[in-house]
Amino acid sequence: MKPTFTLAALSFASFFASANTPTPKNIIYMIGDGMGPAYTTAYRYYQDDPSTPAVESTVFDSMLTGMAHTYPDDDTVVTDSAAAATALATANKTYNGAVSVDTQKQKLKTMLEIAKEKGMTTALVATSQINHATPASFAAHNEARYNYDAIANDYIDNKINGKLPVDLMLGGGTQYFIREDRNLVNEFIAAGYQYSDNFAQLEQIEQVPALGLYAAKGLPFALDSDPLRLSKMTHKALSLLEQNEQPFFMMIEGSQIDWCGHANDIACTMAEMHDFAQAIKVAKDYIAKNPDTLLVVTADHSTGGLTIGAQGQYKWQADVIKGVQATAEVIAERLMTSDNMQEQWQADTGMAYSKDIEVLLTHAKQVDEEALVLTVKKLINEASFTGWTTSGHTGVDVQVFAHGVGHEQFIGSQNNVDIATKLISFINKQ
Amino acid sequence: MKPTFTLAALSFASFFASANTPTPKNIIYMIGDGMGPAYTTAYRYYQDDPSTPAVESTVFDSMLTGMAHTYPDDDTVVTDSAAAATALATANKTYNGAVSVDTQKQKLKTMLEIAKEKGMTTALVATSQINHATPASFAAHNEARYNYDAIANDYIDNKINGKLPVDLMLGGGTQYFIREDRNLVNEFIAAGYQYSDNFAQLEQIEQVPALGLYAAKGLPFALDSDPLRLSKMTHKALSLLEQNEQPFFMMIEGSQIDWCGHANDIACTMAEMHDFAQAIKVAKDYIAKNPDTLLVVTADHSTGGLTIGAQGQYKWQADVIKGVQATAEVIAERLMTSDNMQEQWQADTGMAYSKDIEVLLTHAKQVDEEALVLTVKKLINEASFTGWTTSGHTGVDVQVFAHGVGHEQFIGSQNNVDIATKLISFINKQ
Repeated sequence: MKPTFTLAALSFASFFASANTPTPKNIIYMIGDGMGPAYTTAYRYYQDDPSTPAVESTVFDSMLTGMAHTYPDDDTVVTDSAAAATALATANKTYNGAVSVDTQKQKLKTMLEIAKEKGMTTALVATSQINHATPASFAAHNEARYNYDAIANDYIDNKINGKLPVDLMLGGGTQYFIREDRNLVNEFIAAGYQYSDNFAQLEQIEQVPALGLYAAKGLPFALDSDPLRLSKMTHKALSLLEQNEQPFFMMIEGSQIDWCGHANDIACTMAEMHDFAQAIKVAKDYIAKNPDTLLVVTADHSTGGLTIGAQGQYKWQADVIKGVQATAEVIAERLMTSDNMQEQWQADTGMAYSKDIEVLLTHAKQVDEEALVLTVKKLINEASFTGWTTSGHTGVDVQVFAHGVGHEQFIGSQNNVDIATKLISFINKQ
Repeated sequence: MKPTFTLAALSFASFFASANTPTPKNIIYMIGDGMGPAYTTAYRYYQDDPSTPAVESTVFDSMLTGMAHTYPDDDTVVTDSAAAATALATANKTYNGAVSVDTQKQKLKTMLEIAKEKGMTTALVATSQINHATPASFAAHNEARYNYDAIANDYIDNKINGKLPVDLMLGGGTQYFIREDRNLVNEFIAAGYQYSDNFAQLEQIEQVPALGLYAAKGLPFALDSDPLRLSKMTHKALSLLEQNEQPFFMMIEGSQIDWCGHANDIACTMAEMHDFAQAIKVAKDYIAKNPDTLLVVTADHSTGGLTIGAQGQYKWQADVIKGVQATAEVIAERLMTSDNMQEQWQADTGMAYSKDIEVLLTHAKQVDEEALVLTVKKLINEASFTGWTTSGHTGVDVQVFAHGVGHEQFIGSQNNVDIATKLISFINKQ
């Protein structure tokens, strides 16, 4: 047996880089904020159809290519969303809290800015306020992520060759855009942007440039509102971008996966994962019709220390989670004012109202609403055997998924900055 | 711009399967028991040289190809080691506790048995007893993993075309092999096996067939004994297998990564990861000299719900973990009999003996040794910001790493049984 080793010995990335790698016309970059490996795995079991013997695969399974290292350039290996987004947007690591500035607080050019220089149409879509850390790191520069007003200002002041950096923005954030000191919405309208602030009228946006702001800060959670709000914004954004002939760069963030993770609220988390997964499907459908497009999906870090299984038990009860109808915040709010705790609990969680549960909820209600929120989460986490270790982030590597032209560049283990380097290389070839 | 889409549209696995895929002569299959994604990531930061600005990559980073779904064929999505090893050895999912039998308790043919049928030399190496769930599922069949005596019997009774199934076994387990009712060691010697029971004389094994049993059950933990015992056994096994011209199949298990994970002992865990990583390097070095070999590394599941970061803090202190000199069991044992708690604590952990620590340790010591073990672990986990959610397993997908001939078959997201299917396909081509 004399197999040929030449091909096998090459890494795939280097093999295809050395070949005549095709360059994508359009780039869709999707970031699941906080979406570590336990999130995509849990989502597989959450969305599984229990009436079939097989465990159905997810959209994530269909496009996994590798994993990425998320550590920042700081005195820690655990990143925040700003440092990670800076790495993913500029190919440079920085300190936690930095929005596309380096450790010397010097501006770092982002791939969206390069795309704009190259004449591409640019877009940001998020379920957070559109000036939150992840989208911010693509179009703004600030030494501190919580300088929300200054970051929003950058979206109109940060001119690229005399032009505004982002042609299409869909997300939340009116409180940062309509302020006493400055009304950015009016400035955007004056600059020719169509403005939309009613999510029910999302479809009435007719063309880019456009700005859609659908909440004071972040949009309501998927579990408490429209469960497909991100996928609808993704669909709308792609139909707008499809209208013009220009190549486009768009970053879409599943922002609130992270927020549910910080809250250690598993039903909230899975609903956000579902919206994000549906948004990815929308992007894949677009590529089926427009194969000159690259889709890259990753996460900035994992959140909450989520684990599938806990308490020494070898199980995870997705059925419990699927029965929960609202976030713990909303369930607690309703329980606080309910005359019939049992009925309310059963309607909101699908869980039996045992004597133990009654005692715990009643006691927490006597303390305050915050205690009740914690108790609701504890009961759902325990019944579903969901584990959490922190209200913050964790340092586990995140997955990298890619589909379409150039996806083979993302195979294997890579640093988060490597993802940006590869995408910037594609954008530079425009 | 008119890029070519034909190549990019093909998945890599299918592209290379459709091409004339080379078949490896030898297969080295390494299983890190319990080694979920947080373990390989944590190991990167644990082994990082803090005197250099870069974070050094690991051997895992150099060969990541994909991830695998670990759920068993049971009423849960969280697998045990027996069901997972059965999936990895036979390409069939089964119930938790099953050793290469299906849900009807019928025997499932293993890849090691097929390899033996094909005339390949076969080997099992583990730091557990060699008849523990993972190695057992390659060469034995039993409806229950804890039937250790019956499983050990299979290693001599489970004849493949009249031959014993495994030519080389290195691990622990004398108490199961030398019993009142049956002395399997004598039977192996009568069958022509060289027997070795002194690890210091590992190098004196001259040829296969051979049986090396170096502990009553599992070998001592790496952190409490020889930190490179698995890599030494791997090196020895490969030098024995290199002597004969036959193709070989070898499964090597980093068994005790899982045991440290069950114990939620992070220093223990990282020491086992280091030994396993060094063993992988030994295998890669073998392939550098013998390129007709495929190395596949994966895990059966993750254990303990390990997280890098905890308690709301964005940090993980590898320096604390590197300072710990023994497992918590051993540290507690020493503290129980020590006249100078402070000196002992500082020598064994490298941590300061604060007033708080003194109070906690002194109180636990007054309770009993078990309380002291728990306190030692709690102090180290808290100081290093290491999180755990369970004494059992979790359901997160595990990574798949491959190197050498045929490695491209393992790119992407796959079921754990798919790994076995691909390896069996290679073995069947012998």
